[in-house]
Amino acid sequence: MEELHKQLDFIIELDRLKGVYRQALVKSDNNRFENSAEHSWHITLTAQIMQEYAAEKINISRVMSMLLIHDIVEIDAGDMFAFADKKSLAEQAEKEIAAVKRIFGLLPDKQFQAYQALWLEFESAETVDARFAKAMDSVLPLLQNMRNEGGSWVRHKLTKSQIIKRNQFLEGLAPKLWLYVCQQIDLAVEQGWLQDV
Amino acid sequence: MEELHKQLDFIIELDRLKGVYRQALVKSDNNRFENSAEHSWHITLTAQIMQEYAAEKINISRVMSMLLIHDIVEIDAGDMFAFADKKSLAEQAEKEIAAVKRIFGLLPDKQFQAYQALWLEFESAETVDARFAKAMDSVLPLLQNMRNEGGSWVRHKLTKSQIIKRNQFLEGLAPKLWLYVCQQIDLAVEQGWLQDV
Repeated sequence: MEELHKQLDFIIELDRLKGVYRQALVKSDNNRFENSAEHSWHITLTAQIMQEYAAEKINISRVMSMLLIHDIVEIDAGDMFAFADKKSLAEQAEKEIAAVKRIFGLLPDKQFQAYQALWLEFESAETVDARFAKAMDSVLPLLQNMRNEGGSWVRHKLTKSQIIKRNQFLEGLAPKLWLYVCQQIDLAVEQGWLQDV
Repeated sequence: MEELHKQLDFIIELDRLKGVYRQALVKSDNNRFENSAEHSWHITLTAQIMQEYAAEKINISRVMSMLLIHDIVEIDAGDMFAFADKKSLAEQAEKEIAAVKRIFGLLPDKQFQAYQALWLEFESAETVDARFAKAMDSVLPLLQNMRNEGGSWVRHKLTKSQIIKRNQFLEGLAPKLWLYVCQQIDLAVEQGWLQDV
């Protein structure tokens, strides 16, 4: 039963991700802030639906597992806006490594090792699976902002070049999606939701 | 691009599940009600972690896909408490079938057919994968209520026999979990969180 109790402790700990709020707004729920648990659900399903656009062969089960767990570290480290300054992002990276150890460390060792490896793979963004997962994580906020008069882009005065840079690795990874993203970015500039720099 | 636009419409529609609230409370976020999107994330990951307890061979990727989509119909049909009366549950089933057609129907036909079949398989609870997925969907609320002074059990004055009945198919499916659930139910009765009937 010891193993089961460890797993149950982890599952209960996951509840706390529902209280970590992001920059994105949920339009369909009075424009409240989105939490990282519901975001993780949305992005996992988005990857499954979009898998056909991957130019190289991906293992969609692994991609989905990465996306299910990619934000769990925020339980300890909090959510950091993707466009924060370099110093904040570096400090965040350190906090997240500690969070991996503590939170996944609640699990029995074999599962801890497996999830830690998967999380590190996602963060490193070197494998095709990790890159596709990361790409989904950039595309979804774009879709949300386009349906929400610019959303977090407007609030944070972001520029066209920042969004292009963040999505650019789609170019080789999923060319059709990259084309769509470029069109949307141009539209956002026309609407005044992104600064034309 | 037509196919992509259908997929994007579906992905944006998913946002609405974040505004469908359930009976469970999120203890770590000021005991607000839990929404069905974050619940779907939590239950999908729970299934992945608990897969070793399945007595028969399951396809965990299929189980996880079922759990990711099992509540999407609530965007149209709303959430119905598992212990509602029979008439309400029957009306709910009709609404959900219509919701499957409308919501998954936003997708290109091949994806629509695949998700519809998966949802129907989950609802029918005849295959091992579907039964394991359903079992997870009953176990998680139990864990949440046990950590929350009885939670929705207390508010709705539920009985021991109702909870046993709802979880009973764990008995053959995942005997170790069934044992744990029985212990927890006894504990809940002792605490006065479940009526001893």
